[in-house]
Amino acid sequence: MLTKLPVHIVGQAERLARMSRVAAIVRMSSSAPSTGFFFRQLFDTVSSTYTYLLGDMKTRDAVLIDPVLEHAERDATLVKDLGFKLVYAMNTHMHADHVTGTGKLKSILPGTKSVIGKSSGAQADVYVDDGEVVRFGGYELLAKSTPGHTNGCLTYICHDQSMAFTGDALLIRGCGRTDFQEGSSEKLYESVHTKIFTLPDHYTLYPAHDYKGQTATTVWEEKKYNPRLTKSLKEFIHIMDTLNLPYPKMIDKALPANRVCGLF
Amino acid sequence: MLTKLPVHIVGQAERLARMSRVAAIVRMSSSAPSTGFFFRQLFDTVSSTYTYLLGDMKTRDAVLIDPVLEHAERDATLVKDLGFKLVYAMNTHMHADHVTGTGKLKSILPGTKSVIGKSSGAQADVYVDDGEVVRFGGYELLAKSTPGHTNGCLTYICHDQSMAFTGDALLIRGCGRTDFQEGSSEKLYESVHTKIFTLPDHYTLYPAHDYKGQTATTVWEEKKYNPRLTKSLKEFIHIMDTLNLPYPKMIDKALPANRVCGLF
Repeated sequence: MLTKLPVHIVGQAERLARMSRVAAIVRMSSSAPSTGFFFRQLFDTVSSTYTYLLGDMKTRDAVLIDPVLEHAERDATLVKDLGFKLVYAMNTHMHADHVTGTGKLKSILPGTKSVIGKSSGAQADVYVDDGEVVRFGGYELLAKSTPGHTNGCLTYICHDQSMAFTGDALLIRGCGRTDFQEGSSEKLYESVHTKIFTLPDHYTLYPAHDYKGQTATTVWEEKKYNPRLTKSLKEFIHIMDTLNLPYPKMIDKALPANRVCGLF
Repeated sequence: MLTKLPVHIVGQAERLARMSRVAAIVRMSSSAPSTGFFFRQLFDTVSSTYTYLLGDMKTRDAVLIDPVLEHAERDATLVKDLGFKLVYAMNTHMHADHVTGTGKLKSILPGTKSVIGKSSGAQADVYVDDGEVVRFGGYELLAKSTPGHTNGCLTYICHDQSMAFTGDALLIRGCGRTDFQEGSSEKLYESVHTKIFTLPDHYTLYPAHDYKGQTATTVWEEKKYNPRLTKSLKEFIHIMDTLNLPYPKMIDKALPANRVCGLF
């Protein structure tokens, strides 16, 4: 004779069994999406740096822009989880506030090449200059030279997706400082106005940093609301000259490391 | 007779004048984009909460999902900068880790209505239940009841944009805790498997929080890589029962405030 269980326990056992069946069916039906453009923004709360993973879902080629050393494992796991082959680990410029993850990513994901601007003063496998293109699968990033924060600053533009990665040249309602490395307020003003503000209004702009919980902006917004770059060049230079920012706390560690892909 | 200036000074003056002309022309050519869907993710570094601004660029109607009290001014400024009318300030559930910004937003942006799930136990102008729709302009969010973290948890789905806002039901490679408020691991497992994992694989999922610098995920990724919810219900309940999490440090302040739109 079968032991008769209380009704509420039978109910729970049935629910458990049913849910396990549902879960198994749901998992089995899963397959990796295989077309289109992939985009994922990542964040480092210590240096407030944004890292970007871009990929071609068809060819599975991907690039990482501005990876941070301490998150190389996180980023590499995501690349592998998604079935991507990391073609390039790129920097918009030689950062002074964090150590780049490009070198470590190369060792975790063999075959990855590091990329940086020709005028950056840093070592890399591939150097890019104004007007040159970085390809991954069927997509490409057009490098535009946007000096001012540093001489080697590049903005990477993906026209196909109406987006651009501005590094420290243009931040959300702000811009990178111009008082160290090869900083020049005049150069930065010219870079932003001739290379970024001339992009179509609807293009989304992704900066290397944000300190106020903002994740993106558009060309239109910055042309209208950027509190520094909507000013005249003379006013802009005055603003930048009187910021009185503290000495960058990571610069003495970050620059020597970033000259060699973060592997100092 | 004109004073003859040194060549390099003439050059600089000319560049200044030219750049000011370029800047003026660039600003004048700017007009607000007027079609399509607008999306912006915002972050609170203190509670690691994500807030989402969604808008209809044509009608200029917008909603904010899970705004944080301390960022109400930031969020309201963005809404105004973009020329939006904030129709709803919504919560996915009654949060225990931060105070909601819905009440403050209502006072900064008159006309805004607060929205929360019927089963949340919190006051709001509009209550939504499973299967009901929140409309802003030509777009809509379908509310699906996903209890387990709390009884009133809703996942808001925007089928038109292939995206869903999962609150604390499903986090990136994780999930909300189930050991306080009306927490139930069994309910949470059923909610995620029947209401979220049944969405198309390519849907982007935006959670209420992330603690590792991740900003979004997809249905496919979580069905394949979520370390808790890919397990059987029995294993999931065991994992949740043995997390040994500390008492939520904000709960005694947040819950009384969040029962009344953060205006305690």
